[in-house]
Amino acid sequence: MKRTSRDIRTANRYEVLRQIIASSPTSRQELAAATGLSLATVATLVGELLDLRMITEVGFEDSAGGRPRGLVAVNASGGALIGVDIAETYVHVELFDLGLNVLARAEEDVRPGESLPEQVVGHVAAAVGSVVAQAGIEGARVLGVGVSVPGQVDRATGISEYAPNWDWHDVPLLELLTEHIAYPLYLDNPLRASAVAERWFGAARGSGDAVVVNLGTGVGAGLVLGGGLHRGVSNSAGEWGHTTIVLDGRLCRCGRHGCVEAYVGASGIMLTLRELSADSALLHPEDQTATIDALARGVRGRDPVALKALRDTVRYLGAGIADLVNLFNPEVVVLSSWVAAALGEPLVTEVREAVARHALPRPMAATRIVLSPIPTDPVCLGAATFALEGALQSVGQRQTKRTAAPARSRTAPPS
Amino acid sequence: MKRTSRDIRTANRYEVLRQIIASSPTSRQELAAATGLSLATVATLVGELLDLRMITEVGFEDSAGGRPRGLVAVNASGGALIGVDIAETYVHVELFDLGLNVLARAEEDVRPGESLPEQVVGHVAAAVGSVVAQAGIEGARVLGVGVSVPGQVDRATGISEYAPNWDWHDVPLLELLTEHIAYPLYLDNPLRASAVAERWFGAARGSGDAVVVNLGTGVGAGLVLGGGLHRGVSNSAGEWGHTTIVLDGRLCRCGRHGCVEAYVGASGIMLTLRELSADSALLHPEDQTATIDALARGVRGRDPVALKALRDTVRYLGAGIADLVNLFNPEVVVLSSWVAAALGEPLVTEVREAVARHALPRPMAATRIVLSPIPTDPVCLGAATFALEGALQSVGQRQTKRTAAPARSRTAPPS
Repeated sequence: MKRTSRDIRTANRYEVLRQIIASSPTSRQELAAATGLSLATVATLVGELLDLRMITEVGFEDSAGGRPRGLVAVNASGGALIGVDIAETYVHVELFDLGLNVLARAEEDVRPGESLPEQVVGHVAAAVGSVVAQAGIEGARVLGVGVSVPGQVDRATGISEYAPNWDWHDVPLLELLTEHIAYPLYLDNPLRASAVAERWFGAARGSGDAVVVNLGTGVGAGLVLGGGLHRGVSNSAGEWGHTTIVLDGRLCRCGRHGCVEAYVGASGIMLTLRELSADSALLHPEDQTATIDALARGVRGRDPVALKALRDTVRYLGAGIADLVNLFNPEVVVLSSWVAAALGEPLVTEVREAVARHALPRPMAATRIVLSPIPTDPVCLGAATFALEGALQSVGQRQTKRTAAPARSRTAPPS
Repeated sequence: MKRTSRDIRTANRYEVLRQIIASSPTSRQELAAATGLSLATVATLVGELLDLRMITEVGFEDSAGGRPRGLVAVNASGGALIGVDIAETYVHVELFDLGLNVLARAEEDVRPGESLPEQVVGHVAAAVGSVVAQAGIEGARVLGVGVSVPGQVDRATGISEYAPNWDWHDVPLLELLTEHIAYPLYLDNPLRASAVAERWFGAARGSGDAVVVNLGTGVGAGLVLGGGLHRGVSNSAGEWGHTTIVLDGRLCRCGRHGCVEAYVGASGIMLTLRELSADSALLHPEDQTATIDALARGVRGRDPVALKALRDTVRYLGAGIADLVNLFNPEVVVLSSWVAAALGEPLVTEVREAVARHALPRPMAATRIVLSPIPTDPVCLGAATFALEGALQSVGQRQTKRTAAPARSRTAPPS
């Protein structure tokens, strides 16, 4: 609320590092032009990043008639970041260098019966151990681990307040993880992780206002507003999946009726398929991934049931996204998460048409609707970005000594 | 997007003036404590406001053991601001001093047949002339006129792009007004005017994230996010009235089906009444104001049809506001505009219960739902605030010479 010069300094530090990651090697002059910041501000921020060894000096370029300009680039080997995507049916873990290139990945299945926090934490610990071993790096070089868990999360305390799929209430997830993982930990949820990934590296780069629609088992909207992540007053903004689209409609797993998620989440789509054709070969009972993959193949093969299921889903999805366009008036709506990735371009094409039918002309004219262009798991990438932001944040803290402690493990990294 | 120190300086200038208006007389030290800004920054901003004669030095207070502290206060007579609320059924105009106290007001009825821009402009010109005459002030002291018109507005060009009630498309409203009004003009819509009024003077004072729900003939949501007004990329954010709440439901005047406005706007409520009891004495065909007033009296008198109509309306309204709570996770939801004011506390009480049934527990726990506490027309007050912001903005422009021109009339104020 009370925006301080410190907030803007943090935002500017992110902006400069984003730009360096996107266009290494680059000069301070180019960075000033790209970010709109003054050359003096850029020079200060570049100096901080050099001190942190997140970037390095990599030589000079001639500038016509002037002094040669110093070039900087991401110091890819200056540290490693780990992103953890805990989903309802899997745990994905990726290890990145500081250029956010994937150096190693690991995946564990979460089976339908495995709903205890300890079981999920076990999968995370195994996969984190695996990526560190695969990458062959020293533990001391891991700057942090970002962890995304579905549902409502209290970042400051590291508590998973409510995870609907496993009916978790107030699970001290960060504390449980700390018993297995000795790096700084940052907890948040997939809506915010995927929004941050699009903002730093995807379709919302350079966008002030963007909505990242997550279509998976759960459904929600990550919000980039005014150039930053909108978290809301208790870090629970973006629960678009529980918007009422059909008053007194289908029962949702949240216990209410007619929510968007009950129609466009993976199990909502399965229910639509079952209603269309109870013995459809597309249906793999108890297996969301296999069903959505079969649906995607069916759509590409022009299977009539698959096409009808897609169209019925988009009837709800299009109306729901039109509501987001009317409310936020964003530059871009990004379709993300595994259901959107599986259904791909046929989904986006239908969604564009449906949104255009429902949205008001003025906000519609200003909005692009695209698939996430991030080739890997956007939630892993976003979670790793939270760890990167955490590492950048701690600079600010040492310099200004005036913020609350971030959510991180209380044990030191191993030496 | 590229936030600059200029943006933050403007936001801080607003914050300091807001604080001075709220707590005149006050000292620079108190302002620094209240805003979280440094004393040096406050001193600079106070200096600018003194130069503008928007505030004055009003003496000293003793500070225990230190030097006496200089006190400043709003220079109420330093200028006048005019706010114009063009609504579907009326034009309200209020003239304010710089403390935002009402010095004069005028009202004109807009009759159902009067849908031409020239007719509406005529009402505005007459009412503006009336308030200036009533207040007996010199024209040169009017710093600006903020004008709110329903629908989609392009502030930069002063064009009413779409006003559904009169089916206006691309009406050059500011140009038409300039023929009659020689003060600087600022055009926007009632969603944004009422949001700014709550942010400066109402229930969202000090709130980073607030949603101002406007319930009138039209319905929408003014958004205060991260402490500032969220406009979206083409100034059309907040069109919550055209959120689909009942897929394939009632026809809305926007041409689509099942919009929130079709159930909770004034004519939606009239339709609900008619469906409940076609010959109800509460119904005043063709007169929304009389009908809503009769409904409000009926609710207070425990009339069964009135109570049922309220409950049916709140069924939709509660679900729709719950969606806003889930999406934005705001500190406060403010119910504003004339339908909310007429129905008053009985409405808010029912809405609170309905929202609690629909919203997710975590965002719900963080949100207050209140009636607008602004005793006068919040849209006039907000429109006048746009004129005040415009006057403050022009300081910044003279100093930094680097912004787009604001939407204002091209004629100079009269001497």
